[in-house]
Amino acid sequence: MPTKAYAASSPTSSLAPFTLNRRDLLPTDVAIEILYCGVCHSDLHQARNEWSGTIYPCVPGHEIVGRVTKVGAQVKRFKPGDLAAVGCMVDSCGVCKSCKRGLEQYCEAFPTWTYNGQDKHLGGPTFGGYSDAIVVDEAFTLRISDKVNLAATAPLLCAGITTYSPLRHWKVGPGKKVGVVGLGGLGHMAVKFARAFGAHVVLFTTSPRKVEDGLRLGAHEVVVSSDANQMAKHQRSFDFIIDAVSADHDINAYLSLLGLDGTLTLVGAPEKPLPVAAFNLLLPRRSFAGSGIGGIAETQEMLDFCAEHEITSDVEVIAIQQINEAYERLLKGDVRYRFVIDMASLRDA
Amino acid sequence: MPTKAYAASSPTSSLAPFTLNRRDLLPTDVAIEILYCGVCHSDLHQARNEWSGTIYPCVPGHEIVGRVTKVGAQVKRFKPGDLAAVGCMVDSCGVCKSCKRGLEQYCEAFPTWTYNGQDKHLGGPTFGGYSDAIVVDEAFTLRISDKVNLAATAPLLCAGITTYSPLRHWKVGPGKKVGVVGLGGLGHMAVKFARAFGAHVVLFTTSPRKVEDGLRLGAHEVVVSSDANQMAKHQRSFDFIIDAVSADHDINAYLSLLGLDGTLTLVGAPEKPLPVAAFNLLLPRRSFAGSGIGGIAETQEMLDFCAEHEITSDVEVIAIQQINEAYERLLKGDVRYRFVIDMASLRDA
Repeated sequence: MPTKAYAASSPTSSLAPFTLNRRDLLPTDVAIEILYCGVCHSDLHQARNEWSGTIYPCVPGHEIVGRVTKVGAQVKRFKPGDLAAVGCMVDSCGVCKSCKRGLEQYCEAFPTWTYNGQDKHLGGPTFGGYSDAIVVDEAFTLRISDKVNLAATAPLLCAGITTYSPLRHWKVGPGKKVGVVGLGGLGHMAVKFARAFGAHVVLFTTSPRKVEDGLRLGAHEVVVSSDANQMAKHQRSFDFIIDAVSADHDINAYLSLLGLDGTLTLVGAPEKPLPVAAFNLLLPRRSFAGSGIGGIAETQEMLDFCAEHEITSDVEVIAIQQINEAYERLLKGDVRYRFVIDMASLRDA
Repeated sequence: MPTKAYAASSPTSSLAPFTLNRRDLLPTDVAIEILYCGVCHSDLHQARNEWSGTIYPCVPGHEIVGRVTKVGAQVKRFKPGDLAAVGCMVDSCGVCKSCKRGLEQYCEAFPTWTYNGQDKHLGGPTFGGYSDAIVVDEAFTLRISDKVNLAATAPLLCAGITTYSPLRHWKVGPGKKVGVVGLGGLGHMAVKFARAFGAHVVLFTTSPRKVEDGLRLGAHEVVVSSDANQMAKHQRSFDFIIDAVSADHDINAYLSLLGLDGTLTLVGAPEKPLPVAAFNLLLPRRSFAGSGIGGIAETQEMLDFCAEHEITSDVEVIAIQQINEAYERLLKGDVRYRFVIDMASLRDA
């Protein structure tokens, strides 16, 4: 099925109109008309080949919400007209230990990413959500409540689950002191979730301009990380810190804020290795961990939790024609806190 | 009490005879005639001011076993003639959360280290086990079975507990695949413990000459880490890795051997920060942790476990007069696997 999209044709070219081919529906497939697609920093990394390995033309986008238009013969949980969502993965091996545990993101044969993956059925690369429609196996399609704001829900599919999953895994809740490093697309969701889970939430930001926003979003305290006195005050006091910064930064400054058996979990992916001072881990016993998105079952749990607790992302809705400008603003941190493309702008163009 | 010892008088001077002053017994103190003292790499770091902050003259040594000569009026668990041991700490605050949990090594006010600490009673620095006798509070004095080889037991007080504690904390046991990086004083104890706990043990060494020894000490497999094929074979397969290397080394090569939710724990303390690639932690969810020695209760548990399972360190017993030569051999990795000073050599000199 020919489908309108926006693609990057090289690491240095702007995103521009492109027509891709979606596969005909297999028996377990769901076809979705895309209504909104969030703009993740990964989209920009991949479009510009900053992680290397990008296949061109590249159609980014993995924060997808839309409406089901057609389903395969064996599809049970969706019918045309339903709302549906797709996140960072569209397939996995299904048989390895990780998949069996519902942790498809850690599939030992690697999941099929929503874009720049290898399409198992058509061959060639997978294409993401900067497009008119997508065809996805039912097993990787999420349900969306019809009560939610769809545009503000789109970012939950990556920014949401990427922060929800580690906060759940490391048991953030009442009585825990939790730090969030960086107030961007991921960080602002981490603040909302950590607060909703009942923890004492401290936001760390480099930007004094974001203090007020941090408090509004749910942080109990906001620390401007350049303030050495403030940083010193929090030494060795945190149970858990989620670090959502994908730029280079001094990880030791945050490790030293952890108390005994505290964990700092990275959810951003800085390009350069982060130097870790051994003594910062040894005394007291601390962990530096990482976490990647979340499994399908947990993504559904997160979407249901958000619908119930009225949690969405703070978004700025744009037209697809503004995507290149949006990337430039993203690089400057000039977005509060997620761009979301209204895909009507593509259909109507 | 004037006490014979060996001390470094500057970062560049050899260790040489020195007379130090031990405090008169307080009501809760135990006086111990030192029979054997292990030689830890930390001793050398501290004697040469490689961690900075060394107070001179410096008397190293924190793997101490000996015989009680005198006890204070309130001492309950020791009497003259008993065997006794002292490890890396001789005091702590006793009231913080860590101390309350029996994790004195993570005391929030910092423990008093056996050497180069601040003596709370005499003032001035604490002096370690390269000496004739030591006076220690009963609460920091360990019991030793009279059935064990004393020289081979001394290294348990640091090398032993430093590896025992993280293997217990991260629940190493049957069904777990466990890696040990580096076959030195710590590494050889980690191999013995991991094997005794019932895990499948893989030793990583840079030295093909140590393969046979690794197997003899209890490893099920020994991998020479320069062999890329062997390393590739073990990718993403470990539950837990204990890294006992204190020289610079590529930590990412070992992090990539961890499976989902695997942890690599550092017990050595390389001087330079270790660069960690973010993606190595993110996919699959992995942790890079650190652990420092162990609490007093766990040290006693470890000593009792070793007595019961006939676990000791492989040692080379030396006279105190050979300490400078031993340091040079230590730097070349030329010791299998711990030097232990027979303190009779000091008394009889």
